[in-house]
Amino acid sequence: MNNMLTSFCDVAHAMLAASRPIARQYFRAPLTVERKSDQSPVTFADRMIETAMKAVLSQHLPDHGILGEEHGGHGLDTRYVWVIDPIDGTKSFISGVPVFGTLIALLDDGRPVLGVIDMPLLAETWVGRAGSGTFCGDDLCTTGKITALDDAILFATSPDQFVGAEADIFENLSRACIERRFGGDCYSYGLLASGHVDLILEASLQPYDFLALVPIVTGAGGVITDWDGNVLDLSSNGQVLAAATPELHAKALERIAQTRNRNVA
Amino acid sequence: MNNMLTSFCDVAHAMLAASRPIARQYFRAPLTVERKSDQSPVTFADRMIETAMKAVLSQHLPDHGILGEEHGGHGLDTRYVWVIDPIDGTKSFISGVPVFGTLIALLDDGRPVLGVIDMPLLAETWVGRAGSGTFCGDDLCTTGKITALDDAILFATSPDQFVGAEADIFENLSRACIERRFGGDCYSYGLLASGHVDLILEASLQPYDFLALVPIVTGAGGVITDWDGNVLDLSSNGQVLAAATPELHAKALERIAQTRNRNVA
Repeated sequence: MNNMLTSFCDVAHAMLAASRPIARQYFRAPLTVERKSDQSPVTFADRMIETAMKAVLSQHLPDHGILGEEHGGHGLDTRYVWVIDPIDGTKSFISGVPVFGTLIALLDDGRPVLGVIDMPLLAETWVGRAGSGTFCGDDLCTTGKITALDDAILFATSPDQFVGAEADIFENLSRACIERRFGGDCYSYGLLASGHVDLILEASLQPYDFLALVPIVTGAGGVITDWDGNVLDLSSNGQVLAAATPELHAKALERIAQTRNRNVA
Repeated sequence: MNNMLTSFCDVAHAMLAASRPIARQYFRAPLTVERKSDQSPVTFADRMIETAMKAVLSQHLPDHGILGEEHGGHGLDTRYVWVIDPIDGTKSFISGVPVFGTLIALLDDGRPVLGVIDMPLLAETWVGRAGSGTFCGDDLCTTGKITALDDAILFATSPDQFVGAEADIFENLSRACIERRFGGDCYSYGLLASGHVDLILEASLQPYDFLALVPIVTGAGGVITDWDGNVLDLSSNGQVLAAATPELHAKALERIAQTRNRNVA
């Protein structure tokens, strides 16, 4: 498996060699921004990157399944399925903010065994491989050591991602932390893997947003689950909790449960 | 005046030559984070950068006044006063996010005539000079052409900067825009000058946070005032509204006034 993962990892890097020049070419270039049915923005660049990445994958691993944000998927019932997000952080991309990434996950029977966060404009790439840890470039990543909520820096991409009762849960957890910061999308998870961010709470995410993050966070010593502590997979509900340490993760889960129970009572 | 501004601009660049290496050296390095009386974070790096910048200024322009975020000021009653923020976005800095900047403003009898936003990790620098326009590197900056709120991308650093009735005003204005994004600090104003961001609403800012932005936004064709349309100076109340076009600025001001009147009624 490890040799096979190494060759799959080479394919992921070949996909990045195709995606990066397109992201760099269209960043801050005049682009028509279309709105999808959920009002989220998409551009020609998102679609072009996904097409280019899929072409690389088809060339090297034609029997693998693939699911992409913009063009859907095929072969989702095969053992190996790749899940890609050409531009995670399209809202940053269209605002000229270089904090957006390309995400690649490889699922083995539904379990994410390889994850990549590539920041084409910042020239930072995190790669997490089951059994081999997480690397940012040549650096082995280790999450921070914070175990108490009131020492933790918490990130979320936007307060607007929390819907209904989720907003109350976010408010209660984030207010228990020393700092809460917005923005970041996938970048926050790379920073968590590298020990700079302690806690991330998000909601309304899609599988292509979070599956790549799983090997990266866990390979660096962190914990990433849904808001009930369940492992993340293709059927997860889009609520994501990532923490630098198991202790911090447990305390955040507890705080989430408390808020839910208080609201039910 | 223009020749004099050119030489003052050279001094600003000499200050950046001193600040950048320190910011780069301490970014993502282990640093003790202290909390100021308002709970905002500060590090050794903030203080060291300010000290280095002040030393350059004292060497070249010993008769000028100076006000810094971390070490206060002197000579504030002289004609020329420099206002500097060594790290605008310390919360990003301590989270490993490279979106933080160094700000320099030069006031001539209280009026900002030179403004600099330097992003040491992103290697982007905006310079705005009264009468000479705004440049990002060698590129002359021009703001975007959006005039309607519902076409505008709005930025704010955090929803947490709005206190009391300000939160309602932010909510009403930002919900009228096609997109609202958080994060950015000073960077958003550079992006507005370069045509990528249309509208910025912020509050709870200090003079060292906003004075440098004035020549940059206005030099690129934008408008920047407080929430009542008044020009920004050392005595402003920390509420800032910046827009890509005069029309968009007028509509935002009108929306702010409507929310205020509704809340009073």
